[in-house]
Amino acid sequence: MVVVMAPGATPADVEAVVHLVQSAGGQAFVSRGLSRTIVGLVGDVADFEALNLGSLPGVLQVIRVSVPFKLVSREHHPARSVIRVGGVPIGPGTLTVIAGPCAVESPEQTLEAARLARSAGASMLRGGAFKPRTSPYSYQGLGEEGLRILAEVRAETGLPVVTEVIDPGSVDMVASYADMLQIGARNMQNFALLQAVGSAGKPVLLKRGFSATIEEWLSAAEYIAQRGNLDIVLCERGIRTFETATRNTLDISAVPVAQRLSHLPVIVDPSHSGGRRDLVVPLTRAAIAVGADGLLIDVHPEPKLALCDGDQALAESDIQEITEIVASLPSVMGRMLTLPAGDSGRIHAVV
Amino acid sequence: MVVVMAPGATPADVEAVVHLVQSAGGQAFVSRGLSRTIVGLVGDVADFEALNLGSLPGVLQVIRVSVPFKLVSREHHPARSVIRVGGVPIGPGTLTVIAGPCAVESPEQTLEAARLARSAGASMLRGGAFKPRTSPYSYQGLGEEGLRILAEVRAETGLPVVTEVIDPGSVDMVASYADMLQIGARNMQNFALLQAVGSAGKPVLLKRGFSATIEEWLSAAEYIAQRGNLDIVLCERGIRTFETATRNTLDISAVPVAQRLSHLPVIVDPSHSGGRRDLVVPLTRAAIAVGADGLLIDVHPEPKLALCDGDQALAESDIQEITEIVASLPSVMGRMLTLPAGDSGRIHAVV
Amino acid sequence: MVVVMAPGATPADVEAVVHLVQSAGGQAFVSRGLSRTIVGLVGDVADFEALNLGSLPGVLQVIRVSVPFKLVSREHHPARSVIRVGGVPIGPGTLTVIAGPCAVESPEQTLEAARLARSAGASMLRGGAFKPRTSPYSYQGLGEEGLRILAEVRAETGLPVVTEVIDPGSVDMVASYADMLQIGARNMQNFALLQAVGSAGKPVLLKRGFSATIEEWLSAAEYIAQRGNLDIVLCERGIRTFETATRNTLDISAVPVAQRLSHLPVIVDPSHSGGRRDLVVPLTRAAIAVGADGLLIDVHPEPKLALCDGDQALAESDIQEITEIVASLPSVMGRMLTLPAGDSGRIHAVV
Amino acid sequence: MVVVMAPGATPADVEAVVHLVQSAGGQAFVSRGLSRTIVGLVGDVADFEALNLGSLPGVLQVIRVSVPFKLVSREHHPARSVIRVGGVPIGPGTLTVIAGPCAVESPEQTLEAARLARSAGASMLRGGAFKPRTSPYSYQGLGEEGLRILAEVRAETGLPVVTEVIDPGSVDMVASYADMLQIGARNMQNFALLQAVGSAGKPVLLKRGFSATIEEWLSAAEYIAQRGNLDIVLCERGIRTFETATRNTLDISAVPVAQRLSHLPVIVDPSHSGGRRDLVVPLTRAAIAVGADGLLIDVHPEPKLALCDGDQALAESDIQEITEIVASLPSVMGRMLTLPAGDSGRIHAVV
Repeated sequence: MVVVMAPGATPADVEAVVHLVQSAGGQAFVSRGLSRTIVGLVGDVADFEALNLGSLPGVLQVIRVSVPFKLVSREHHPARSVIRVGGVPIGPGTLTVIAGPCAVESPEQTLEAARLARSAGASMLRGGAFKPRTSPYSYQGLGEEGLRILAEVRAETGLPVVTEVIDPGSVDMVASYADMLQIGARNMQNFALLQAVGSAGKPVLLKRGFSATIEEWLSAAEYIAQRGNLDIVLCERGIRTFETATRNTLDISAVPVAQRLSHLPVIVDPSHSGGRRDLVVPLTRAAIAVGADGLLIDVHPEPKLALCDGDQALAESDIQEITEIVASLPSVMGRMLTLPAGDSGRIHAVV
Repeated sequence: MVVVMAPGATPADVEAVVHLVQSAGGQAFVSRGLSRTIVGLVGDVADFEALNLGSLPGVLQVIRVSVPFKLVSREHHPARSVIRVGGVPIGPGTLTVIAGPCAVESPEQTLEAARLARSAGASMLRGGAFKPRTSPYSYQGLGEEGLRILAEVRAETGLPVVTEVIDPGSVDMVASYADMLQIGARNMQNFALLQAVGSAGKPVLLKRGFSATIEEWLSAAEYIAQRGNLDIVLCERGIRTFETATRNTLDISAVPVAQRLSHLPVIVDPSHSGGRRDLVVPLTRAAIAVGADGLLIDVHPEPKLALCDGDQALAESDIQEITEIVASLPSVMGRMLTLPAGDSGRIHAVV
Repeated sequence: MVVVMAPGATPADVEAVVHLVQSAGGQAFVSRGLSRTIVGLVGDVADFEALNLGSLPGVLQVIRVSVPFKLVSREHHPARSVIRVGGVPIGPGTLTVIAGPCAVESPEQTLEAARLARSAGASMLRGGAFKPRTSPYSYQGLGEEGLRILAEVRAETGLPVVTEVIDPGSVDMVASYADMLQIGARNMQNFALLQAVGSAGKPVLLKRGFSATIEEWLSAAEYIAQRGNLDIVLCERGIRTFETATRNTLDISAVPVAQRLSHLPVIVDPSHSGGRRDLVVPLTRAAIAVGADGLLIDVHPEPKLALCDGDQALAESDIQEITEIVASLPSVMGRMLTLPAGDSGRIHAVV
Repeated sequence: MVVVMAPGATPADVEAVVHLVQSAGGQAFVSRGLSRTIVGLVGDVADFEALNLGSLPGVLQVIRVSVPFKLVSREHHPARSVIRVGGVPIGPGTLTVIAGPCAVESPEQTLEAARLARSAGASMLRGGAFKPRTSPYSYQGLGEEGLRILAEVRAETGLPVVTEVIDPGSVDMVASYADMLQIGARNMQNFALLQAVGSAGKPVLLKRGFSATIEEWLSAAEYIAQRGNLDIVLCERGIRTFETATRNTLDISAVPVAQRLSHLPVIVDPSHSGGRRDLVVPLTRAAIAVGADGLLIDVHPEPKLALCDGDQALAESDIQEITEIVASLPSVMGRMLTLPAGDSGRIHAVV
């Protein structure tokens, strides 16, 4: 930590900072500048934070220079991690596609969407049974009935299932159906929920909050990791900016930045980022090229009948383009497309 | 709703929109412009949303022109509401100050903070027992022990208590101690929690998410209202912008805008907005002058020992200025300072 | 300045930083932390910036801890400045209202607007002859003809005139008509223009860019000051955020923050901030209460005929409310309303 | 345009809107909804804007549904344009790399940077002689001397030159040296400058303002086009958001969105977006994959000696990776790397 003294700070003010830091077991090094004196602190940041140094007379600013997360940091775990979900790897070396409908609406719709997902190169199925919607008058999902449908479709297709959980009280129930638990963007700082999924014994897909900094995103992952669960996949899905041409602004730089700070895999959701079907293909290409470890894509057998986010879901007619991209582009990046269980390379063969 | 057709839309495309709307029981009026054709829809918006009109060929854009909330809207409830918390009114005509420590740390600290709060003109006590913190390594609060302390201090001071709830599973427990339940900014779209407090039988203080639009904020209030609870007070506490000189940017305009859209009271938190002690006084004045119905202010007997947000808490030496402002400025706005139970006007007399 | 070393930085990396700083005539103090080593630099920041320390091996981050402006800073000039425009003071102790039409359209409209401005408490007239508009198809102003009209209306009313300048090549021409030159928000970082007005010998009204940090705003003022002109008034007019309910978000906190960093006066434009007539009155009250030194308000005799920003201009029917606010609220803040030349206190008397 | 009436609007209010529109030569179609009445307007938008419909009683909102630009729009010019700069094409079918130093510092540094640029696959040289810097104490460029150096290096290397112009008064002088004029992000809404480059007879590189919407960016291009110059290349270079891990947030979606709205080529600046050397390579890959028509990359023979933005400039050791990417990735997108004049395919051959 660095304490910046105000221009008018007295020697006694500086001394008080040094004394307080030392009394907390730390060391303080003073650099007297022409217009500013700064004090560098050595010791445990958590101890220093409790000192409220910013409240002392003559203190202008307190700057933290280390990151507020440890378990998910790459500092002590330099190798990037591979997370396995029902046998499917997500991490360096592969490109893993997760696809499916935004919301589970019926067995037929979900099975048909899973078929589309597979033909788009997916080795995992996504689908929402509990939908957090901005308006209470929007479709809220099928609940546990939706989870049963997902489990049936998994049995039929062999695709492991990721689905969102929105309430700490239902984490165990959702975990009994799902292979991976998704924390949605709006719940990224729902700490009770993060702690609950940290203890649920299933891998977690942690979406970045649409207004969360990368550091806050990794701190949210740290909440999960603290409960003993390091099987976490980060998902960039667009941030909120002033631009209204797209629903959110895909922060493509967040992929290499997060991969540099954390050993966890980072995937991209090109569907929710833009919120527009015509952007899914170019953003999918960009995500693979920037180095993402995977993709999360909305598909729906009939987008115009979708109960949720139909404007962005890919339909059968759009799938061929995705199939070709995920079959060819990963190799340029030194990655292999992850094939679904039981697949003998059909997708590669097609292209 | 308005459907804007793309420049190249064919008459058949327009006809398809009209047909679909009519089949859903609505009416559609077509205006053919020079470069755009638009279709105005009359009927139930929820029905139209399910049509995914944006997915139809030739459709450029679908614009919603009505608001997505009803119960909290002023359209059907033009008079502004007064909410009562343990006998204390919040609403038009009064200015109600809620003050207290960011976190409950001990009985002594809380009682002393309550004394400061009262002398600052507060008629309600705030204090956190469950603290949602960005980092899992920051202080997380005393939990139920903190609630017991708050209840004791209420007994001693007569100040009703508002405290944050962060988990649907503990709403009933928290409600058994508190007079008002606070939903923090990070949980504004934690819909399971909103529904839980909607059923808890206590008034709710709903902080605006730091990246929520005013419309999303009111939609979150609608989730609470839908469960039968209209005793909701909205609290503006700063939004996230590019500016780093302040922790958040107080959106002072949000007060009149929200009061125009909704009948619910709107208060301002000048402490968390700026995150700086030196801004609390000017932002308090601005909040009263813009027409806020109340204030939520951090006070602490010894800010430099505070376990949470000590940089922004007012100490005893700062209180006199607040006391004078809340005693004099509300009358300029045609409001009266709400006095605490048992107070016979001492504060007014002091000034 | 502070140099933060990366976790894996070697002693040689640290030594290289120290050596480079010393070779540039500075001093470097090393603090070795548990997870980070930091180096505090003492000397001239401009010299250090040229070293590109961020490019050295093992350097994680370079943090500047002093502000990048000097002449406009309060560090070396603690007393707040009063700027005089045609005899009218702007600064501490007074509240100065500048009002007038967004665009000068005709002699009659401008004179009538000036009459409204005066009755609203204004002691200066604003009016645009050169209008920077987002679209080239919007009204661009009358040009020099508009300046002649402003000069005539000044002669008739005694109100000094502020008007916008948008091209370095026409600064001298505009300065020959105007009492004060306005730099609009879009031109806040048009450095050629800043330098031109710095040499023009007239006071300058510097609007904050709608995406400029407060530090960038003050750095822009420094460009003007460097040319020898310290007669600068800063104007907060709303920043761009994700919120769309208002045209911009008035950053009310920017007033006390800028006043603390700089000795220059800071005024507020409540008209352009919200872009809505119904917000002008509450934002005017908030601006006065937060401590602004003045106001810049759009008025128009017939807003529905205005060629520019008619949606936010106050009409005759709205003026009475402003008149009452500026007559009564400044005294609460220990300020006096600045009266126009030749005014014997009529406005105060009215209320 | 669409006029949305407020809930309490009377039939007379609606009639007034219809009447006003008709009197301006337009047509108005009324759709009466359950909670809202909307009026669709047919005619010339510019005429309607002058009506200030938002000021009429009972009007809640006026929504523009057509775009405010024409000449640069794809509506009337569906084929995407190819712009030629000194014989070098920028547009669909090719990927054109422009590289060079942020600032021209000396003949040697510029020539060496041009050599690096060529080996990185560049067919054009960038370099700044006039540098718009946030602080007046930062390096401001060599001015006309820098332009002479650029012209000499062009003569030696055959690479056409793009350089920034910051003052309308020096446009002709800069145009006498440069092959293409760059408008920097801070000047995107410097309309006097846009008009000057529109008349200068040279192609223009228009950077997106860091807080400009895509629509505002295209409106700025329209200012240039209005003066008869349609040789415009758009450059996305990152927008300002709340995220501080990168200097700006590269809005990768802006590339396909702008290409869909406008026929002009769109290139990406991966250097200024992130402001970090380690992000240039991944963002370069993402830009090519998303479909950009070119790249603008900072290179410097010795970044740690650079007088401007040394933290992001690529050095010789980084070039090989860029060379490989631009040699191989464009073909995946159906594009060919544009080769410099006199190059017989060396770069392709190397890889």
